[in-house]
Amino acid sequence: MTNALALLKEALGDAVTTDAARLASAQVDESGHRSDAPPLAVVEARSIEDVQATMRIASQTRTPVVTRGAGTGLAGGAIGSAGEIVLSTMAMDQVLEINEADLLAVVQPGILNGRLNEILGERGLWFAPDPASKAISSVGGNIATNAGGLLCAKYGVTRDAVLGLKVVLADGRLLTLGHRSVKGVTGFDLTALMVGSEGLLGVIVEATVRIRRAVEGAVATIASFYPGVRDAAAASAAITAAGLQPAIMELIDQPTLNAIDAYVGSSLSTRGTAHLAVQFDGPAAADEARRALEIITELGGDAELTTDRAEAEALLAARRAAHPSLAAMGTTLIEDVSVPRTRLPDMFDAIAEVERKYGLTIPTLAHAGDGNLHPNFIFEGADVPDEIWEAAGEVFQAALRLGGTLTGEHGIGLLKKRWLGHELGADQLELQREIKRVFDPDGILNPGKVF
Amino acid sequence: MTNALALLKEALGDAVTTDAARLASAQVDESGHRSDAPPLAVVEARSIEDVQATMRIASQTRTPVVTRGAGTGLAGGAIGSAGEIVLSTMAMDQVLEINEADLLAVVQPGILNGRLNEILGERGLWFAPDPASKAISSVGGNIATNAGGLLCAKYGVTRDAVLGLKVVLADGRLLTLGHRSVKGVTGFDLTALMVGSEGLLGVIVEATVRIRRAVEGAVATIASFYPGVRDAAAASAAITAAGLQPAIMELIDQPTLNAIDAYVGSSLSTRGTAHLAVQFDGPAAADEARRALEIITELGGDAELTTDRAEAEALLAARRAAHPSLAAMGTTLIEDVSVPRTRLPDMFDAIAEVERKYGLTIPTLAHAGDGNLHPNFIFEGADVPDEIWEAAGEVFQAALRLGGTLTGEHGIGLLKKRWLGHELGADQLELQREIKRVFDPDGILNPGKVF
Ligand SMILES: Cc1cc2nc3c(=O)[nH]c(=O)nc-3n(C[C@H](O)[C@H](O)[C@H](O)COP(=O)(O)OP(=O)(O)OC[C@H]3O[C@@H](n4cnc5c(N)ncnc54)[C@H](O)[C@@H]3O)c2cc1C
Ligand SMILES: Cc1cc2nc3c(=O)[nH]c(=O)nc-3n(C[C@H](O)[C@H](O)[C@H](O)COP(=O)(O)OP(=O)(O)OC[C@H]3O[C@@H](n4cnc5c(N)ncnc54)[C@H](O)[C@@H]3O)c2cc1C
Repeated sequence: MTNALALLKEALGDAVTTDAARLASAQVDESGHRSDAPPLAVVEARSIEDVQATMRIASQTRTPVVTRGAGTGLAGGAIGSAGEIVLSTMAMDQVLEINEADLLAVVQPGILNGRLNEILGERGLWFAPDPASKAISSVGGNIATNAGGLLCAKYGVTRDAVLGLKVVLADGRLLTLGHRSVKGVTGFDLTALMVGSEGLLGVIVEATVRIRRAVEGAVATIASFYPGVRDAAAASAAITAAGLQPAIMELIDQPTLNAIDAYVGSSLSTRGTAHLAVQFDGPAAADEARRALEIITELGGDAELTTDRAEAEALLAARRAAHPSLAAMGTTLIEDVSVPRTRLPDMFDAIAEVERKYGLTIPTLAHAGDGNLHPNFIFEGADVPDEIWEAAGEVFQAALRLGGTLTGEHGIGLLKKRWLGHELGADQLELQREIKRVFDPDGILNPGKVF
Repeated sequence: MTNALALLKEALGDAVTTDAARLASAQVDESGHRSDAPPLAVVEARSIEDVQATMRIASQTRTPVVTRGAGTGLAGGAIGSAGEIVLSTMAMDQVLEINEADLLAVVQPGILNGRLNEILGERGLWFAPDPASKAISSVGGNIATNAGGLLCAKYGVTRDAVLGLKVVLADGRLLTLGHRSVKGVTGFDLTALMVGSEGLLGVIVEATVRIRRAVEGAVATIASFYPGVRDAAAASAAITAAGLQPAIMELIDQPTLNAIDAYVGSSLSTRGTAHLAVQFDGPAAADEARRALEIITELGGDAELTTDRAEAEALLAARRAAHPSLAAMGTTLIEDVSVPRTRLPDMFDAIAEVERKYGLTIPTLAHAGDGNLHPNFIFEGADVPDEIWEAAGEVFQAALRLGGTLTGEHGIGLLKKRWLGHELGADQLELQREIKRVFDPDGILNPGKVF
């Protein structure tokens, strides 16, 4: 171990930190989880060569490496612990190319999603993946987790935006995957395999991503309130089933409305027990919104519609206030199940059942446009109590029963490992482990995460 | 071998054929290539259990298995040879579920893409992947090749339409990959890995696919002619760069126009030396077409626009006649390179260079909306002459130099194996081989294909 550290310092000099505060900051991410002990060192890679040098030394000394982006992950994937090298890609934060004509950009992994979008925005362009954390999360982290976001039902998840990757393997070799063309079927799709691989298969050191021209024209936004959360969920499912394609469709349940009212002093909860915000963009926005409004009203929603951008922001304000409002109530474990869109009402029933059984309140938000729910478990102190994990486990099982998944966008990391086998089954789990061994035979990349 | 045959007959009875004509038909696909000798048997699987039984026997007796859909492949991937079991999935051709509300369908692999779309069409729904072969190719084959098509620039390639798969592994075990929800990031994305895997990793026995509501409203279609192929390519690149999104954008060069004129008696080649057909659909169709028309005219195109569906068919007739017109000229090797969209003009230059060097005419079509070109090599007799392969090899290298790929949609199969390493590089090639070994340790699935 000290051998590894000495070799790192010799090869990388200043890029290697053992400063106590820096090590401590790498023991946590936004999941609330903290590792038992600080890592060996943090390497701030400045180049592909730095990453390669780090991986060669790690390989040679069998030292575990945790690749870390901005550390906003909600699954504990970027957390470093005793004896581990935390390899940060945040100093590799340049945009290497913007190709307007081919609508692609080449970027380093450490650039923040929001910063990339600022740079693109100056030219009327944008990068579609938009996790709610976009101001604070890195594009490399978005790719490593296949991040979703508010707009992904219409504009795709991160995987859909990645054309090619440069990846440093566990032994330090550099691989170039994919291409600059929008199509290609040469061999197995390792680019897709790498997206969402949570630091287990290699270090993403460069990405060629699709970009888009900014969507022109007005947006049309609806805010609606319902007597019950099932009604709101049914309205969102009906909008999808009608073939309408909102850019944003976000659902908030009663406990979350209460939390927002308490936090920002609003009175949303007097208007209904569930809230659905729907936004359409593009040339048909007004027409689609009119049709959605009919559906909502028919299903008992109390709704208002605006085509004014400033008013739209006001209508979406509730959704944007949700996370901080919940965080103000205690430590939050933000869960992330996903179900077929028509099963949203059933999933809310299942959550209500778990609430009753465990005597808990589980404020829940949903990216209703793609059936992705974030049930929030709130507790005192730093560590998730066992009972909360048990309750969360029942929520996961319900999502699987409904044809869905444990995690729609946050990933498995440390925190959801124990449920992985339930979803994948023993055969697939073993196959996945073997794929991991192909990329990383000594198991030095993010050991103990996911599997 | 005879042992394998006896075991297959015992387990599967009638589903096993050794009829000479049937065996001979499995020696070819639409690539024009024929294997040296007939396979051992053709198994017409009627169920997942049949596939499992076949794979168990194959595994036990180490007999190679070639999975075969409709046999329309252009890379030789489904061709059976001496000692091989050809496992056809064409008798598994049922639609198991259509879920209008969740916009998904569950289908068996043998259903023809066109048939699935007929069934969906009755309900105002459709399955977007649309290879030009959709009337004659299977959904299982489309998934195994990650088929593209005319509409894929706007509506995605096959991978984008697959939510989940059931796959029988080499040893007969059944895996369930993916889920019914539109989002999910549990473990590595094996569904994406399986799409485009050309029968090397497992047998696809069921698919959960995304479907869409039929696009409403008028379509707007432009047919345009240009003084040179570079002009046509530049027009298509300018349309993409302007952020317009045609549903269809197809380019035809001069030799292809000549072939069409000769075959159908038209006089297209008197109007220009290159042809670009562009179709817009959806609510903004008319407006987008108007803007595309401006771009085309500015760049020297001679264009006509219609919003009438019947007239549109007439405008697209040239493109639809291209394949049969070329096929009438001799044996055709249809190549399939893909480049970034702005490099289309350069790719046409590179093809012209190869034409000059080899004294060949290489009629070329392009799915210009996604930079995918089909250069056609035409020759006498059944086998591709060495010189043609050499010329094709230079075309491939040019595509790679331009940041593209050997194959945009047809796959590697038998015919493009020798160039695979050029694109992937030695390290990635070895990694891909190791992934193959994880799924199929004895190498019985489609041996000798791709790698
Ligand atoms: C308030 C808030 C809102 C959020 N909203 C969303 C949301 O809407 N949608 C969503 O999907 N997520 C959301 N998240 C979760 C998180 O922001 C995403 O998972 C994000 O993609 C993580 O990026 P990061 O740079 O912070 O990565 P990190 O947290 O540093 O790392 C995440 C994982 O990726 C790996 N990794 C990071 N960089 C690399 C690299 N270069 N190469 C290989 N592996 C790497 C790490 O090892 C780790 O396993 C939210 C988080 C917060 C705090
Ligand atoms: C006139 C014509 C036009 C064409 N146009 C296009 C086009 O526009 N776009 C395009 O992408 N392709 C096109 N093709 C090529 C071909 O139609 C596609 O590759 C198609 O997807 C193959 O489907 P299939 O059912 O015929 O598969 P097959 O040819 O039988 O098999 C193709 C490959 O898939 C594997 N496979 C088949 N079924 C399974 C299964 N169930 N499980 C695992 N592996 C399986 C086979 O082993 C083989 O490697 C065209 C072909 C022709 C003849």
